[in-house]
Order: sequence, then structure tokens, then C-alpha cells
Amino acid sequence: MSSPPAADVTAGLAARLTDVVGPAHVLVDPELRAPFETDWTRRFGGPALLVVRPGSTAEVADVVRACAGAGVGVVAQGGNTGLVGGGVPPSPGRSPVIVLSTVRLTGLEPVDNAAAQVTAGAGVSLARLHAAAAAAGLAFPVDLAARDTATVGGMVATNAGGVHVMRYGSMRAQVVGAEAVLADGSVLSRLSGLVKDNTGYDLSQLLVGSEGTLGIVTAVRLRLVAAQPERVVALLGVDSTAAALALIDVLRRRVEGLEAAELFFDEGLALVREHGRLAAPLPRAFRAYLVVECGGLADPSESLFEVLAELDVPEAATAVATDRAGRASLWAYRERHTEAISALGVPHKLDVTLPQARLAEFEAAVRAVVAETAPGSTLVLFGHAGDGNLHVNVVGPPPEDETVDEAVLRLVAALSGSISAEHGIGRAKTRWLELSRTAAELTAMRAVKAALDPAGVLNPGVIFERV
Amino acid sequence: MSSPPAADVTAGLAARLTDVVGPAHVLVDPELRAPFETDWTRRFGGPALLVVRPGSTAEVADVVRACAGAGVGVVAQGGNTGLVGGGVPPSPGRSPVIVLSTVRLTGLEPVDNAAAQVTAGAGVSLARLHAAAAAAGLAFPVDLAARDTATVGGMVATNAGGVHVMRYGSMRAQVVGAEAVLADGSVLSRLSGLVKDNTGYDLSQLLVGSEGTLGIVTAVRLRLVAAQPERVVALLGVDSTAAALALIDVLRRRVEGLEAAELFFDEGLALVREHGRLAAPLPRAFRAYLVVECGGLADPSESLFEVLAELDVPEAATAVATDRAGRASLWAYRERHTEAISALGVPHKLDVTLPQARLAEFEAAVRAVVAETAPGSTLVLFGHAGDGNLHVNVVGPPPEDETVDEAVLRLVAALSGSISAEHGIGRAKTRWLELSRTAAELTAMRAVKAALDPAGVLNPGVIFERV
Repeated sequence: MSSPPAADVTAGLAARLTDVVGPAHVLVDPELRAPFETDWTRRFGGPALLVVRPGSTAEVADVVRACAGAGVGVVAQGGNTGLVGGGVPPSPGRSPVIVLSTVRLTGLEPVDNAAAQVTAGAGVSLARLHAAAAAAGLAFPVDLAARDTATVGGMVATNAGGVHVMRYGSMRAQVVGAEAVLADGSVLSRLSGLVKDNTGYDLSQLLVGSEGTLGIVTAVRLRLVAAQPERVVALLGVDSTAAALALIDVLRRRVEGLEAAELFFDEGLALVREHGRLAAPLPRAFRAYLVVECGGLADPSESLFEVLAELDVPEAATAVATDRAGRASLWAYRERHTEAISALGVPHKLDVTLPQARLAEFEAAVRAVVAETAPGSTLVLFGHAGDGNLHVNVVGPPPEDETVDEAVLRLVAALSGSISAEHGIGRAKTRWLELSRTAAELTAMRAVKAALDPAGVLNPGVIFERV
Repeated sequence: MSSPPAADVTAGLAARLTDVVGPAHVLVDPELRAPFETDWTRRFGGPALLVVRPGSTAEVADVVRACAGAGVGVVAQGGNTGLVGGGVPPSPGRSPVIVLSTVRLTGLEPVDNAAAQVTAGAGVSLARLHAAAAAAGLAFPVDLAARDTATVGGMVATNAGGVHVMRYGSMRAQVVGAEAVLADGSVLSRLSGLVKDNTGYDLSQLLVGSEGTLGIVTAVRLRLVAAQPERVVALLGVDSTAAALALIDVLRRRVEGLEAAELFFDEGLALVREHGRLAAPLPRAFRAYLVVECGGLADPSESLFEVLAELDVPEAATAVATDRAGRASLWAYRERHTEAISALGVPHKLDVTLPQARLAEFEAAVRAVVAETAPGSTLVLFGHAGDGNLHVNVVGPPPEDETVDEAVLRLVAALSGSISAEHGIGRAKTRWLELSRTAAELTAMRAVKAALDPAGVLNPGVIFERV
């Protein structure tokens, strides 16, 4: 990219983009820009020349072409619920960028019942997608806490995960096809909903998880699944991570409709109970806890009870609910971890995956590593044990001191894990990318980036510090 | 690529490759090469300078480097069960190539029970993979008729489908990660089995369906699923394609464990019955037939019966079996289509997907198009109606006359379908690729190819006639 432009570059670009999207949708005023320039954690962000809100795919293409012509980068932003700074401008002093917000791309076609699919604009919120699927008697299987704000475009760009990945996969598995604007302003469009389509490279899948660096997703064709109205949730006390994993192994094989298997530990439970003034979930304490959920067209609880009985899981280690309120009260012990941890201070949050067979080893090792590199800190672990995905939270070290982050990520890499399970690389983790990727992989990734965006127009500084 | 090499290029390359893999695994003798030079349909193929059978990923890398250095292309071949000439050399007179057979890459690690995954060498047969999964009490959910010969490497390279896609997805959905050799001899390796791994571009997924043009898959990490021992198969008579699709729509929402929904028609049934001397499956004739299968941990037949009763599907339109022999006898009406058609002559086979909502329209239109462009021919349609995927078989026109093929593919394109659902582009369909792909997509695909294989070493002439 060229050197930072003078004010006349901004003025010229603003005029050009106003022609494209109209004056109401080019935000130059610093106060109007501000919400788009910082992520919601307030950890990442920087100045944008302006914010533009195109209302159609053709307008997105025109915006990208104009920016490419002006030597200005384009940061695509959906609901701005990311956690790694991938949807906000770089810190001051870097190459000039604009923010392209997809919030106006809110077209949502009627559900295609014949195919059990739906086409949604990038700016459609996850909550709206859920509602549309439910109204058609179907379901969209990815869910996460930011559902009211997170957009499907952002979720595709970041390959969002959530708690149902073990049954349904992450966003990647839901994407039948995507429409996207590339760095040269050309438009890819695979929205006709073809489940089987072996006609060359699957460019839609290449865009999934590319964090706005290869193209700007403007619409997606998503699969829907049968609604699973009958549900059972069990909270199970176990003596160790290894015991939890052994239980998951059996449940995976023997229980119908297993959708979630979430792990937390006694230290997290204590924190959550204190923070939320919750009663103990079980008559006695355990070292670790699993929350499992099964969904079905018919009541899946009998199948779950049978297996728990066969495994001799004691009654004192089992709380079960099938009604909505009861299920929510069991889930609360897991779901309230985030707020309970935040109440202690600003946590260092790491989101890692380990090979399932090494998850127990990691749990022990990460406690030692954190004790050594951040003595006196509070460590809280929880996560999606069915996917090998743990969230590592360390409260204590100041936010800018990343000693413990680096030590944990190095441990993850040594155990063949991923330094980012769900959150992505964004700007936050570029310096650690090589812990999870070999030189050959980085070379191939850079070659793909250079092939599709040779001038580095799209999300400069994200995934790769430098292209 | 350079012009065809003289005999000394072959001799030099053979010597170099003998150093890499040993003399037993460099086949220069025309008789030894022959089985690798023609596909099993005998429609595609051509001369290879030699055939090499490396025994490890490192040897594959050395072979690729040697060929790249000599200006010779590399055609990767698995079980040679492809249908579009993607795994055999081009016809005589094109750029010189060797065949790299993956048949010796037969390493199969023990099933990872904790993760419900397995790592398999590219040369492992599908049947062996099924057996290994079953021995661990799990299942590999992709199945197809060539299971004894088809290799997992080839199935990943071609994103193989089959009859269970509606429940489990195609090969793409099973690939947790891949190991592959790129055109420069570098090795990508994502075999640690991380279900969630958002650390940049998913190069493993990019390789799926790339037909050996971006890298040579040497090993794959695959997910396994819970075995579904209890099964029910129903053969249902319906009055039209539209009625069949309406039935699938309800079954998809209401029946547990729906794995397959296969469609065929009266003309195909008549052929199959005559060829196989089979009794009529139902007490009266129908225009179209669906074979549906459900699998579960518990018997899924009750759930199916309930829905069929609610839909008032008459008894005369329903044949059901839960025992293995009975299920096989119902499946036979669908599965024997291929052999019954082949007995009539060499068919023109097209494998297409339509948007589900336009499948009925296509069924009517394709009959008209075939009647017009190949008068007097026999048309037999069948396929995976749950995925919008139909196999169009036309017997009559000579094999080299592709008038009917082109007319059918143009119809598919006009209805926003895919000209290749499962089989790929290979060499057979390169000239029609632009019917399914826009100019922007072709440009992006070529850019990716050029980025990862600038000299065009890997499978020249496949997918793209020319790079």
C-alpha cells in the first residue's frame, strides 16, 4: 500500500463513495466513525479514513474498486463482535483504511423448504436467521452468545463455532455457497444451493475463515436442519478431565442426538456460584463437570439415562432437566463463566484446541505453565470438550503483559494444538501464527493471498502482519 | 510446460526416480504402465513416460521435485475409479507426464477413539477404512460402489459423494485435515485432528475436490461417526417427481436418522427388472419410486411408519424392510440401474445437480431435450434426490457424438445447476466448465492454481484445458 494519504485523498474518496452509496452512508465525522473503529473488548482498533455502509453487493464492489484505486485498504465489519481485532482498523500509523460495514446487507430470502436452505445477506443477524428458520419449522444449528449482534457475514468470514459443533460442525459446515466481492471488485456468486457441485475449486469454502482478507462476503446460502424440539440437559460431576473425556467417548457412540459436551472445573464453579449466588448443582463437590445436551424429534432422555446407568454414574453426580427452565438453570453454571471471570478483572483470554487425546495432559500442563509465568494469577478453564476446545482465562497480569499468553500458546503448539480454535487470528495473534502453521503452510497461504489480492487491499495486517 | 522430451529425458527421469523409490517402483515397460494409462471406463487415457509408486510422503515430494525440474507433469492416481479422466494421462501428443500412483501409501493408524477420528494414507481403500472404523465400533459415513478399489486420497481429491450425503455430507465434510505435497515439493501436514482451528486459510479444504491440480494428497485425517446399527429401508411408489420431493421434505423434518432418499422412474425399474429378473417391488406400478433409508442406535422404523401413516401413503405404495437381506433386496431396484443401463450399450452419463426446487422442472425438461437431440435413444434417470443430484443416462448416440451431452448440460446451466455433482471436471468436462462457473470464478480459480503451481506441474489439462 502507498504511504498515508493527505486529507485530499480522504476527501476525494469520500466524494467518490458518496456517489456510490449516497451521503447518509459515508461517515467521515469522528463521532460517527468511533463505534466502528474500536472492537467491543476495547482492546483493538484505530482510525479509519471513513466508514461506508453499502446497501448492495454492487455497491460493495464499487467501494472496493474505488479504494483499490486510491491505495486505501478495506476493513470489512459485520456486527463487530470479534475478539481478535480482525474487523477494526489497525492501530494509528499503519496503512490507511476505511471500514466497510455490512450492516445494511440485510436481505433475507424466504426459507427454501424444498432444499432446507436459506439465502441471507451478510448483515443479517444470527438471531434473525434463527427466527426465520424456526418459522419454517427448521433450525439453523450454529448458536453463540452474541446472536443479536453477530452477522452471518462475519460468522462466515471467521468460521464461527459455538456449542453445537460436535453435532453440526462450525459455520463452514453450514455454508452451501457464498457471494463475495474480491479485491479487484469482481463478484463471486454461488447462491443456488447446490449441495453437490464438483466443478473446480470451492471458492466459497476458501472464503470461510479467511477473515476478510480474500474477499468480502456479501451473502451466503446456508443449510438448515430439522428442528429438534425434545431436549435433555445433564450436568455430570467427574473426578478428572480424563474421566470427562472417557464419558464423552461413550456418549458419542451410544446416545442419540448428542449436541454439546461442555467442561468446567471446581474453580470456575466456585466463581460462578459466588458471582451469581447460585446453589450447588450437585449434592457433593467434584473436580470437574460436564454439561451435555441431546436434542431429538422424540425425547432423547431415556437413551441418555440408560447409558449413564450402564456406566454406573452415581446419582449424586447427576442433575438432569428436560423442561426449558430446568435446562437453562443447568446451562447457567457453564454459561456464566465469562461474566464471573470478567468481574475479577480484565482476563487474558486464550482460545485453543488440543488433539482430543492430549486434552487431559494439556489441562495439567497449562496449570503449571500459568503458575510459573503468572504467579499469583487466577486461572479459569472451561470449554467445548467435545471438540478439544478450551478457553484459558488468566486474571492477574496487566493486559499489555503477554508473557502468560505466549507461554500458553507455546505449550499448545508443543502439544500439536491450535492457537486459535474459534476466534481467528485477526490482528491479535499474527505474531503467533507460526506456532500453529509451518513455513510451507505460511508460504502457501501467502501465495493464495497474493493471487487474489496482490495489492493487499483487503484487511491489511489481519492474519499476516505483512503480506 | 516444455515441448515433449526426447527418450533421454525419460531415461534420465527414470534413473532419478529409481534413486528415490527403488527400481521395483518405477515402471517404464509399456505393459506394466498400461493399467495406469487408461481409466476403467476405457474412455480416457494416454501415454505416461513412466509410472512411479512412491512409498512415503517424502518420496512423493522427491518425485514431484524431480518432475518439476525435468519439465514433466505429474498425474496423481489412486484406485483409478474416476469417471472423468482426471487420474489418467492426457491423450497422445499433449505435454509429457508421469503417473504417480498412491497405491503404496497404505498406512492406516489405529482409530483415535477419544476423537472419533482416523489417519489414513492416500492409498488406503474405502473398504479397509470401513472395516477399521467398524472394528472400533464406529463408522465412516461415505460409501460408494467402488469401495474395494477407490482410495481415500482419490476420494478426497475428487470430493466423492455417494448415497449418505444428505445425512453426513460428502468427503469434504469428513476431512478434518490433510497432508499433501505441493508443486514445489513442499509438504502441508494438518493431521493432528483439530476440529476447530481458525488459524488462517483452510488449505486442507482447498485441496478437497481440486482433482490433483493443487497438491497430491498423501494422507488424510477423517472424522468417524457413531455406528447406526438399527436400520429401515422403504421403497415408496409416487406419481411424480414433485410428489417424491414433497415426501422428502416431510421426511427430512420428521424422521430420525434419514440417510438416503434415492429416486428412480418406471422406465428404469422396467429395465432393472428385465435385466435382473426381479419381481415387481409393489402390487401396482407407479411413475416414480423413492428408496429411503434411516439408521439409528435404536430402531428408526416406528418413526418412519408414523410419518408415512400421517401422510396417508397407501399400503400398496410401500415396501419396507428392516433385516439385512430385505433391505438389500429393496436397494437392488435402485443399485442395479447402472448395470442394467450398461447392458443396453455404452451410455452417455451425465451427473448433475439442480436446485432442489427445480428438480421436477428439470426432470420434465431433460426428457424433452433428449428426445429432441437424440431421437430414438433410451433415457434413464436416477439419483440422489435428497441432494438434487440426478444421473442422466442416454443410450443410443455413438460415444464420440456429444450433442446430447452438451444439450443436457446447457439445460442444467440454464436452471442454475451444476454440470458435475460428484464426478468432477477431470479431462472430460473442461470444455463445459464455463457453463457452471462465471468468468470471475474462473479467473479466481486460475489465480489460485497459478499461485500454488505456477509451472503447471500437477495434473496439467485437468479442470482447466489450459492454465
